[in-house]
Order: sequence, then C-alpha cells, then structure tokens
Amino acid sequence: MAVYTEIEDDALINFITDYDIGEVLSCKGIAEGIENSNFIVTTTSGPYILTLYEKRVKIEDLPFFLGLMDHAAAHGIPCPVPLRTKTGETLRELAERPAALVSFLAGMWPRRPAADHCRQVGEALAQFHLATTGFHLKRPNALGSDAWRPLLAASGDDADTVKPGLSKTLTTALDGLLDDWPQDLPGGVIHADLFPDNVFFRSDHLSGMIDFYFACNDQWAYDIAVCLNAWCFEPDLSFNVTKARRLLRGYQGVRALDPAEIAALPKLAEGASMRFLLTRLYDWLNTPEDAFVTPKDPIEYLKKLEFHQSVKGPQSYGID
Amino acid sequence: MAVYTEIEDDALINFITDYDIGEVLSCKGIAEGIENSNFIVTTTSGPYILTLYEKRVKIEDLPFFLGLMDHAAAHGIPCPVPLRTKTGETLRELAERPAALVSFLAGMWPRRPAADHCRQVGEALAQFHLATTGFHLKRPNALGSDAWRPLLAASGDDADTVKPGLSKTLTTALDGLLDDWPQDLPGGVIHADLFPDNVFFRSDHLSGMIDFYFACNDQWAYDIAVCLNAWCFEPDLSFNVTKARRLLRGYQGVRALDPAEIAALPKLAEGASMRFLLTRLYDWLNTPEDAFVTPKDPIEYLKKLEFHQSVKGPQSYGID
Repeated sequence: MAVYTEIEDDALINFITDYDIGEVLSCKGIAEGIENSNFIVTTTSGPYILTLYEKRVKIEDLPFFLGLMDHAAAHGIPCPVPLRTKTGETLRELAERPAALVSFLAGMWPRRPAADHCRQVGEALAQFHLATTGFHLKRPNALGSDAWRPLLAASGDDADTVKPGLSKTLTTALDGLLDDWPQDLPGGVIHADLFPDNVFFRSDHLSGMIDFYFACNDQWAYDIAVCLNAWCFEPDLSFNVTKARRLLRGYQGVRALDPAEIAALPKLAEGASMRFLLTRLYDWLNTPEDAFVTPKDPIEYLKKLEFHQSVKGPQSYGID
Repeated sequence: MAVYTEIEDDALINFITDYDIGEVLSCKGIAEGIENSNFIVTTTSGPYILTLYEKRVKIEDLPFFLGLMDHAAAHGIPCPVPLRTKTGETLRELAERPAALVSFLAGMWPRRPAADHCRQVGEALAQFHLATTGFHLKRPNALGSDAWRPLLAASGDDADTVKPGLSKTLTTALDGLLDDWPQDLPGGVIHADLFPDNVFFRSDHLSGMIDFYFACNDQWAYDIAVCLNAWCFEPDLSFNVTKARRLLRGYQGVRALDPAEIAALPKLAEGASMRFLLTRLYDWLNTPEDAFVTPKDPIEYLKKLEFHQSVKGPQSYGID
C-alpha cells in the first residue's frame, strides 16, 4: 500500500509536455511501491509509470537508481527505462518532490510462484549481475552486514514484545553471523529486494523486473540468498528444495558460481534472513497504528533464519 | 484512498478470458473510489477499469448501477460502459466479490475547478437527466430527505464532540428543512455525487463522468444543488456566484428549469448540505483510527448549510 501525493492536473500536463510522448489522457495513483508514490500516466502514446520520491529515498541516491535502470535496460534487462525530456533529463521535480517517468512493463507478479518461475528468476538475476558490470556509479549497501548491529540496537529490548527472548536470540545469532561473514566473493551491483511482487510474468515468461530502490554494490551470491528466502519457502514456511534447485540452476545456466560462493550459501542465506528480520522488526515496532502501511511479520524471517542455521550445507539448497 | 482486495493473477486471467478483449498485460490497484476496489487492467486491446464491489455496496443495487451506465452511455453520456462477456453478462464474481469490468475514460479531474468547468458540468448534468428518462429500473434515494433524521440520530449527542452545540444546531436546522421540503418537482435519475473528482476533463473539455454508485431516483434540481455545493465554493468556503451562474446557465442551456425548481434552489441547497454534513459527521465519528480512509471534515458542510440559510433567494446563485 503506497502513500499518495496529490498531483495538480495542470502541473502534470506541464511536466509531460517536456517529453516527446504526446498528450496526457489520465493519471491514476497505483498501489505499488511502499517507499514512493506511483502513478500510471496514460498519454496518446501509451501508458507510463510516474514515480514521486518520498522522504525515505535519499535524493543523492537517485542518479544511481535511474542510471542503473538505464544501463540495465540498454544491456537487455527487462526493467523500466527512465524517459528523457527533450533536453535529456531523467530526474526532475513535480509536486515539490523529485520525480521520474519510466516505461511501463507488461506482466503480473506471481501470487503463487512455481518452480519454473524460480528458474526464470535465477536466470534473470544472473543476467542482471552480468549486465551491470560496466555500470560506473557505486552505492554501498546501506542494509548490508555492517548495518545489522545498529539496526538490532535500534529495536533493542522492544524485540521481546514481539516474541519473548527475541532480543537475546538475535544478538547471539548476529555474533555468530558476523564472526565469519563471507568476504571477497565476486560482486558488483545487486538488486537486493527481488521479491515476487517485483518480478512480472506474461504467459508464464518473465517479462519484467522492477523496484531498484534497494540496489547497491555487494557480493552477488548474497542477492541469490535474498531470492532463496523470497521465492523458495512455501506459505507454511517449509523450504521447497525443488524451487531452490531450479533457481540456482537457472542462475548457473547464465553465470557459474565459484566453489567459494557455493560454500558460503548457507551463511549468506542466514544473513539475508537477518537483514529482512531486522528491518521488519524495526518497522513492526515503529509503524504508527494509523499508517497506511501494514507492517510485515518479522517472525516469518526468524523462521527462515532458523532453517538456514539448521542446514547441513549447500546441498540442502538442491545444489549438486 | 481505496481499500484493496488482492486478486490472484490466474483468477484474473480466467476472468478476462470470458470477454473478447485480448490477453491481460497488467493489473494495478488504483487509488480511486472509496466504496470499492478499483484496478486498471491493461490488455492487448487497451486499458479497462475493473471494480470489485466491497461490503458498503448492496449487491441488489448493482443491476441498477450497471444498467444505468449502459443506458446513459448508449444515450451519449461520456460514462464508463460495462463490458459484456461472450455470454452477455456484465455483473460477475472475482476474488469472492461481485465484479464488473468497464471501459476506461480519458481525462483528469480538475483540482481547481474554474467557471468554465462549472458551465460544462451543468450542461453534462442536464444531459444526464434527460438521457436517463427512458431507463426502466428504479432505486430510491437511500440518503434522501427521509434518511436525514435517522442519520442525525445515529450520531446523536456525539456530534457535540466535533463542535459544541452541533447536535442542537442540526436538529433545529433539520426541523426547518423538513417542514417545507420541496415536493413534486420534476425528477428522474440523479447522479447524487457529482463532485470534481467524479468528472474528467481533457484539454479543458468535459470527457467523462464516473462513480454512479449513489445514483437514484429523486428531484432533478436536488442534483443541481449537490453540484452547487461541490463546485461553486472556493477553498476558503466563500461562495463564487460566477461559478454558480455558469453552472446554472450550462444546465438551462440543455434543460430549462421550472419556476418552482428555481424558487426551491436555496432550500434544496440547504438539504444537499445537510445530506453531506450528516454522512461526513457519521463517518467522522465512526471511522477507526487505523482505517485507510481519512474522513472528510463535516464542518465544511455546516458552513455551506449556513450560507444557504442566509441567502435572499435564487438570485444569490446568479440566476437571472
């Protein structure tokens, strides 16, 4: 559920006039994206997505995000392309907010991902990793391993209101994780948030990847770990090893994993669980009751963390 | 801000297959309509609006609403047309709710209505009144003058928490209003909720009227009174008589008002203020704090009511 900034009709018409995309036919706020306000703007040349960047996105990060989409799209990734005005701009202002207009992607995200969706996600993720090797801007991972201790401290003992003993459990788990957190694995740009609602399919073929607003530089295999968590657990939180195997095979069909990356997978998956557990915990404790956004349950990610702590090794993910 | 029901991608694809409109390309929840969940569904043949009817709409009223749009569109009113499946249905079911797919209307609603918008709304309202004379279904006005005493009683003394003395003020005003409420004026189908966000313009020409979910049978001039309130007050709640004159002239250019209708305008405008004041008051007192919908300020309509109580006669609305 998104927050909506109201756009004056005249201001929008002026804004769109600066592009070469025809006349505005309609503009409707859509329920997509939690960090920003998004609108479908239909013009005489078709639909587009307009994003107004709200407070949670740092304006200094926007050239990275927009540049990344531009670069990735130019290298064959099915992602939104930022449109340029007649004078070449992609980052603009509307309704007193930073704003960008991007291309519209056909497809719907899978409410019940199947194994073949996982395979295609693995493939697309590897293609994204390789396609962005030439992208020259950098952005550190603001929610990477260095951020986890401060994030846990921000929730502190309040974590125990969610589940008794949670604060202590997480402190212990985090100590173990950071003690031998994988370093120096191959890396580059990662999506860092490739959940099912950020991947579109059309007739069961992957047709789009969206929402690059957590993208950053980090170890590639960590991005795979985020996807294992997001795509391969069933609604009852049982781990579907068939889906994991298909996801990893899909990935390796495009980019082979190093032995060090494979060996690190359980640890990376623990870390990826920790990252989402910590931000969900913080949001759970800090979302006002009257907010539009319903916070997501942090305990889901505690259970995923515990699963990865218990695995015997990378073979538990179906890797051969 | 609307409430969203989640639609399974496969269920939507099956639903759309029953129409002759091509393949689904995307479906996005939009921030339009408070009573229902609305989505833009884009198919290979273009965009459509999908509505899921939530609890507040009575299922037995849906044939009236859908039939009315069908009839009005067939008689030249620029309103959404309910699409028919290959077997001729308009009212269907999706995600366990009554559902309908309607045509997409180009245009944007005016955030700052100008006098010429008011003229066009007057014209369109009269055209709608005449176009629907042949529509055979009936629906009583559930929020008409008979409903105001029960509505006020439902808020009761709690009204005083909004403004001290409000309960007494409204009881007195309502007694006066119902004592000589206009009867037997010409009537038929009225829109009953033709606010600026329900009227689209494209290049300053009226291009669409939407949201017929309050439409019912009542006196036509009462519909004009609703519009005078919705379109002719400035943000500071001063009454813009130029806008009122243009709205009334626009209306009369299509359908001349009877002398009895003109004489009744101040009273009808008081009544229209009372109706929105009472529903806003009720919603204000009864909306849970964590609801998605921000209730609208009832006091705005108290001030409009007081304006109409103070006018000298129909000439205060710029009528000649």
